[in-house]
Amino acid sequence: SPIILEINPDGGKVVGIEMGATHVTYILADWSASVLSEIEIPFNIDDGPENGIRVIDENMHPFLAQSGLTIKDISAVGIGVPGPINMEYGMVNAPPIMAGWDRYPIRNHLQKLWDIPVSLNNDAEMGALGEWAYGVGRGESNLAYIKVGIGIGAGLLLDGRIYHGTTGSAGEIGHMTIEEDGPICTCGNRGCLEAIVGGHAIANQAIQAARSGERTVLSSIQPIDSITSRHVLAAAKRGDLIAQRIVIDAGRHLGTAISGVINLINPSMIIIGGGLSQMGDLVLEPIRQTIKVRSLKSSLQVVRITQALLGKRASAMGSVVQALSIVLHQASNK
Amino acid sequence: SPIILEINPDGGKVVGIEMGATHVTYILADWSASVLSEIEIPFNIDDGPENGIRVIDENMHPFLAQSGLTIKDISAVGIGVPGPINMEYGMVNAPPIMAGWDRYPIRNHLQKLWDIPVSLNNDAEMGALGEWAYGVGRGESNLAYIKVGIGIGAGLLLDGRIYHGTTGSAGEIGHMTIEEDGPICTCGNRGCLEAIVGGHAIANQAIQAARSGERTVLSSIQPIDSITSRHVLAAAKRGDLIAQRIVIDAGRHLGTAISGVINLINPSMIIIGGGLSQMGDLVLEPIRQTIKVRSLKSSLQVVRITQALLGKRASAMGSVVQALSIVLHQASNK
Repeated sequence: SPIILEINPDGGKVVGIEMGATHVTYILADWSASVLSEIEIPFNIDDGPENGIRVIDENMHPFLAQSGLTIKDISAVGIGVPGPINMEYGMVNAPPIMAGWDRYPIRNHLQKLWDIPVSLNNDAEMGALGEWAYGVGRGESNLAYIKVGIGIGAGLLLDGRIYHGTTGSAGEIGHMTIEEDGPICTCGNRGCLEAIVGGHAIANQAIQAARSGERTVLSSIQPIDSITSRHVLAAAKRGDLIAQRIVIDAGRHLGTAISGVINLINPSMIIIGGGLSQMGDLVLEPIRQTIKVRSLKSSLQVVRITQALLGKRASAMGSVVQALSIVLHQASNK
Repeated sequence: SPIILEINPDGGKVVGIEMGATHVTYILADWSASVLSEIEIPFNIDDGPENGIRVIDENMHPFLAQSGLTIKDISAVGIGVPGPINMEYGMVNAPPIMAGWDRYPIRNHLQKLWDIPVSLNNDAEMGALGEWAYGVGRGESNLAYIKVGIGIGAGLLLDGRIYHGTTGSAGEIGHMTIEEDGPICTCGNRGCLEAIVGGHAIANQAIQAARSGERTVLSSIQPIDSITSRHVLAAAKRGDLIAQRIVIDAGRHLGTAISGVINLINPSMIIIGGGLSQMGDLVLEPIRQTIKVRSLKSSLQVVRITQALLGKRASAMGSVVQALSIVLHQASNK
C-alpha cells in the first residue's frame, strides 16, 4: 500500500528517560527516533520522590542545553521506572523497590514542571519495547526482556503488544520461586530467583568465597564485606575462575526460572539485559543448557536466548518509543 | 448502541467436544450456546489417532440421534485436546502426552468425515474460554484456567483474548520447576509441578502412606499398588485424614507454581479446574495461603482464586464457543 503519511524527522524532538536505582539515563531523539545525544547521571532512588523528581528536573535542562535546546523544544517525554505502574494515575503501585514512591503522582508532577505530555512506564517493559522496536527483538511477536541487575524483572511483549497485567505488575520473574525452601528474599518469600541470583546474592557468594580463602582476585578487596556484584562481573571478565563460577551458577538458576517463563508463555525470544548480560555467553550458555532440560520440546524448538542489543540503552529507547507514540497520537487526533 | 444483529437460537446447532486421556465429552448446543444434551464416553488416548478418531466418530452419530439429529444438522464442531496445537495445520505439535498423535491431521480428518467445519484447540485453553464465556470468569480480562488432573495444564486469557504462544504451547504450568532438585518428571526434567502434585504423584504418596502402616481407609485397597488419585480424592471427601493431608500438600505446591503465574502475568483470576478442583476449599485454601506469602503485593491484591463453575464441562463449553465463532465468522463473510 502507498505511504500516505511520513514522519518528518525534523518535526520535533522527544526525550526518553530510564530511572534506575543508582542512575538516570536521558536520551534525546528526533521524531524518527534517531539518537541525538545521551547522558547518564548518578541517582539514589531511596532518597524518595521529592528529591528524585528534583534531581531528574535539574539534570534535564543542562542536558538539553548541550544540544542548544530548552524544554519548550521537546514534544513529549517517556520515562521508565522500576516498579508496577498504575497507567491511569501515572504512579507506581506497591513497588517491591521504590518503597517511598508508592502512589506518588510522578507523571503529573513532571507534566506540571515541564508543561509537556509525559508517559510513565515500567522500566523492564520499556526494555522489551526498546529491543523490539530498535534492537534484537525486531519483528518478534512474543518476547520477554529480562533485566538482571540488583533486582530481576521482565517486560513481556505478547501477540505484538506490551502486556501489563491487571495492575501493571506483569513480568515479576525475580519473585518466582525456584526452590520452595530456598533462601529468604527481600519480598518475604523463600527461594525467589532474585534471592538466589540478584546482585546482592552474587555479592554474598563472592564474599563467602573470599572469606573461605578460595583463590580469587576478589580477596584483594578490603574490607571483604564491601565486595559488590560489579566487582564479581569485573573479575569474571578478567578471567577469575571463582567469579566465573558464580556467574555460571547464576546462569543455571536463571535458566530454571526462564524455563518456567518458556513453558508458560511460549515466547520466540528471551532477551537478557541488565548488568549480568555484559557477561555474554558465560551467562547465556548455562541458561541455554538449562532450558534444554527444563523446557518442553514444542516450546524449546522455537525460542532463542539472546543478549540485549541496546545494552544499557534499552529502557530509555523504549521510553523514546512511548514519547513518540504520544506525538503520533496527538497528530492523529488533529 | 442499538442491537443490529441478533443470534437466532433456532438457526442451527453446534457440538463442542473435549477429548481427554480417558474420556470424551460431547455437548450439543443451539446457536445461543444453550446446552441441549451431553454425554461422556470412555476413551483411551494411547490407542492413537486412527482408533481415536474412529471412536469419536462412532459415538457422535448415536449422540446426535438421541436428539433426532444427524451430522447434517450440525453447523460446526469445536474440539479440545490435551496438547499444544498448530493452529494452521489443525494438529498437535510435540505433545508431552498424546505422543502417538504428533502431527496427525486431526482437524482435516474430522472435517472430511463429517463434511462440516471443525476447530481444533487445546483443552486447557478451551477451559479458560468456557469459564470466561459461561462460567466464573465472565468479564475478567486476564485469567488463567488451571486443569489439575493426571496432568496439569493451563489456559491463559490475556487482555480479553486466548493467548496461544508462538507454537500453541503456552500454559504448560505442569512443567514449571518448583524444586530445582526435586523428583524426576515424565518430561525428563526434575522438580516439575506435575511430578510433585500430578495424579501419579498423588497416588504414589497414598501408596507410600498405606505401605508405611498409616491409619487410612486407602489401606483397604488391594493390591496397594492399585491405589489411584481418584481413590485419594474419594477418601478425602469421606473424611480420611491421610488423604486430606495429601490434598492439602498438593494445594501448597500448586500455590508455589501459581504464585509464579501471578508474579509473571498479574491475572485478576485463577480458576482451578480438573479432578482436584472437586476438593473445593480443602485444596483452594492452601493455595490461597501460599500465594499470600509467595506473590508480590501489587499482584496479590487483585487476584481471586476460584473453583471452576462449569466443572468437567468447562473445556467442552469452550469448544462450543469455538464452534459458534465459526458460525459467526461464516455469517459475517456472507
